[in-house]
Amino acid sequence: MRTAEITNGQAFLNRNAQRIVDEMLENAERLGVAHSRGRMGEHLIDAGANAPGGIDAGLRVVEICMGGLGTVSAQLDRSGGRWPLGINVRSSQPVLACLGSQYAGWNLSHGKYFAMGSGPVRALARTEPLFEEIPYQEPNARSSVIVLEAASPPPPEVVEKVSRATGLRAEALTFIYAPTQSLTGSVQIVGRVLEVALHKAHDLKFPLDAIVDGAGCAPLPAPHPDFLKAMGRTNDAIIYGGLVQLFVRGPASDARALAEKLPSRTSRDYGQPFADIFKAFKGDFYAIDPHLFSPAEVSVTAVESGETFRSGGPDHAMLEQSLG
Amino acid sequence: MRTAEITNGQAFLNRNAQRIVDEMLENAERLGVAHSRGRMGEHLIDAGANAPGGIDAGLRVVEICMGGLGTVSAQLDRSGGRWPLGINVRSSQPVLACLGSQYAGWNLSHGKYFAMGSGPVRALARTEPLFEEIPYQEPNARSSVIVLEAASPPPPEVVEKVSRATGLRAEALTFIYAPTQSLTGSVQIVGRVLEVALHKAHDLKFPLDAIVDGAGCAPLPAPHPDFLKAMGRTNDAIIYGGLVQLFVRGPASDARALAEKLPSRTSRDYGQPFADIFKAFKGDFYAIDPHLFSPAEVSVTAVESGETFRSGGPDHAMLEQSLG
Amino acid sequence: MRTAEITNGQAFLNRNAQRIVDEMLENAERLGVAHSRGRMGEHLIDAGANAPGGIDAGLRVVEICMGGLGTVSAQLDRSGGRWPLGINVRSSQPVLACLGSQYAGWNLSHGKYFAMGSGPVRALARTEPLFEEIPYQEPNARSSVIVLEAASPPPPEVVEKVSRATGLRAEALTFIYAPTQSLTGSVQIVGRVLEVALHKAHDLKFPLDAIVDGAGCAPLPAPHPDFLKAMGRTNDAIIYGGLVQLFVRGPASDARALAEKLPSRTSRDYGQPFADIFKAFKGDFYAIDPHLFSPAEVSVTAVESGETFRSGGPDHAMLEQSLG
Repeated sequence: MRTAEITNGQAFLNRNAQRIVDEMLENAERLGVAHSRGRMGEHLIDAGANAPGGIDAGLRVVEICMGGLGTVSAQLDRSGGRWPLGINVRSSQPVLACLGSQYAGWNLSHGKYFAMGSGPVRALARTEPLFEEIPYQEPNARSSVIVLEAASPPPPEVVEKVSRATGLRAEALTFIYAPTQSLTGSVQIVGRVLEVALHKAHDLKFPLDAIVDGAGCAPLPAPHPDFLKAMGRTNDAIIYGGLVQLFVRGPASDARALAEKLPSRTSRDYGQPFADIFKAFKGDFYAIDPHLFSPAEVSVTAVESGETFRSGGPDHAMLEQSLG
Repeated sequence: MRTAEITNGQAFLNRNAQRIVDEMLENAERLGVAHSRGRMGEHLIDAGANAPGGIDAGLRVVEICMGGLGTVSAQLDRSGGRWPLGINVRSSQPVLACLGSQYAGWNLSHGKYFAMGSGPVRALARTEPLFEEIPYQEPNARSSVIVLEAASPPPPEVVEKVSRATGLRAEALTFIYAPTQSLTGSVQIVGRVLEVALHKAHDLKFPLDAIVDGAGCAPLPAPHPDFLKAMGRTNDAIIYGGLVQLFVRGPASDARALAEKLPSRTSRDYGQPFADIFKAFKGDFYAIDPHLFSPAEVSVTAVESGETFRSGGPDHAMLEQSLG
Repeated sequence: MRTAEITNGQAFLNRNAQRIVDEMLENAERLGVAHSRGRMGEHLIDAGANAPGGIDAGLRVVEICMGGLGTVSAQLDRSGGRWPLGINVRSSQPVLACLGSQYAGWNLSHGKYFAMGSGPVRALARTEPLFEEIPYQEPNARSSVIVLEAASPPPPEVVEKVSRATGLRAEALTFIYAPTQSLTGSVQIVGRVLEVALHKAHDLKFPLDAIVDGAGCAPLPAPHPDFLKAMGRTNDAIIYGGLVQLFVRGPASDARALAEKLPSRTSRDYGQPFADIFKAFKGDFYAIDPHLFSPAEVSVTAVESGETFRSGGPDHAMLEQSLG
């Protein structure tokens, strides 16, 4: 709640995110983040590339990714074995927070710079087909925030692309970046545990407007210096260790079907560390079964008919094998 | 802490609640709540009747019920089985927060409108015998908040009754309502897990001023469209799944006796879903053993003599049978 | 985050602490703390001696001890047996928060008054050898806060000593005190679970600047009226029930060695309630193996090489024997 700034009772993802950004900068030393300006005048926040970053920085980045509509924390869980610290997210606006904002769905690659844009900027740009199903609009945004899982700031072409798509000058844009291999990056990615559940629900044709509340948690893996392993682990933390509960409207039979299909173990590619799967497909991300990207364990509560359905469960052997 | 507004170091339940109400209205869209004015000029907040409400809205309502003197959250617990999301409350002023404010003890029914008033308004009205044992006074309150477990706003007669009892004009009153069957309602009721422990302790003649701190949690059940089942489940979440720890002054023997008597399993009526018990008594609420209304598991810590006593435990079979 | 006040992105431990102190005083009634002025004009906060204090007060004192750089909470844990409520701390600036501020390392005893000073004042006074390894400076502090595990306020000589060492007038100093035997004291001491891990890591010659993040939790024991037992229990809660995860830079072999040596069970004196050990050494604190003061269970994550090492575990039998 604290992170949401709202006018006339309305939620504004980009305003919320800007406020969290401002707070991050006031706490730059504590959070281990560094601010600078780019060539176009854009604001750059290094949250874990050359700056140290850390868990607190990562949690702020997750809050920003969710447009201020999520409650995010890191908590010890004695059942977590070697990785007791887990990342927890919750939102009573899960579709808007996770799919309208957090999902890394905007391709902002340019030349050798590879990055998928995440955060509330996506709800301004609305360039992705997903937004056909998300009616949210934010017509008067004066600034915006873009989160990039990347080791370096975006080239000017990317800044221009974002500027054009949003109608905002570069000076009004803040790009936050941290590589997959950083502690900030690990937190930021594991913080997607609820988002991947929503994304898969959407793939399964479950109506987005029927998803009314949700929560998720997953263990925080050790970062790894190798990009592939780092990416693999953060995915595996969710795939083999994530737990999500969704609250949905509509018939119980739909909720049951969703609960049965949602866990990662329903995927063809379940059962190996993600990095190995990725290698087996010769690095072709899109050859991997998209239904692998989901939590290990899911409860779906049908709020109108009153049933709760659960399936899946943590895969401790795979976590041992992957998480380091 | 954030939710308490205090002047000269003093706690003012109604001021705290008003502040949380104001914050709710600023976040109305995000929380899924709707504000309107009633016929007498009173403020009405629909937090789950026609408005969608949700878990965040429910948590705010619990904070308001506790007069801003509680710490309230929803957290995933991997040991929670099908209902991993639990509601957690804690207060270092448990008697004032729970019995002086949260307890739904003021009968505000009128004609066909049935509602028990909860929240800090009770500490202004002080119409209940319970207040003979709660010395708290709030002489200069300028507004007040009333929480109603109801599907519709109160009729004018109820607004007048509250106005008379508190000496406040209707314009200074905010009525928040959400039905038992809503997600907001479920959170709001399960958030009483600590309150029911205090209420039973009082019934057991344990001195209220000896209860100095407390915490409680219980799983969040699926809401149910049938009022009786919805009510039954929220009660069962506490009766068969609630955990409370109380910190008390006084001799260890009293703490031990309290711990032994406090869990729900000491009740004559323990062992069936609440809805079935209710039916067996033909809907006569007051025929049910009042000692049933208590957490499944209790720890009582005697802070002056240094012992901790525990009894009871979760009843997973009953939770499976009742919680949906 | 909320508790940190920062200027130009810099962290100021004493400013942060002052802000939490001001907030405590605004909530004095709720927190059960009492403010007064001492003979030299110093501010005194009784947080559990004659004032009742409580868990909320204790959590605020832990936040102050950590100079506002920690996230602190009390949470129920269903695996906690008789002591379900646990104290949780986390910091992305663990060395500064725990060793630069929280460690009770400044001897402020005078005559019969025995007290070790804790809190951000230590980073101003910088009288301890430990500060040779902590480069942090806070040159323009205008006030400071001293936390004392004591049943009475400090004598004027101690106030003068602090005033001299910090260059601040007595009026700019706030002394917070609560005895070991109080609920506030229990929370305050158990809140050192992460700090003791850092302190032992330092004793083991692990480089402080390689510790980048950390979290810890331990059960809250019942306070005990006997000082020796109260002290014993709070230590035992950490020694036999504490869990810590550290995130460190540097080679995996160093992280592994740290994880193996860090848990309390590596100590010669492990295996009895602390109060018994203390008696066996005839009350000579410094005869006790300093390596006993550490959490029962530790995970160390090597963030640069990507491994996590874990050793130790909770000792339920010892907790049963000691915690009351």
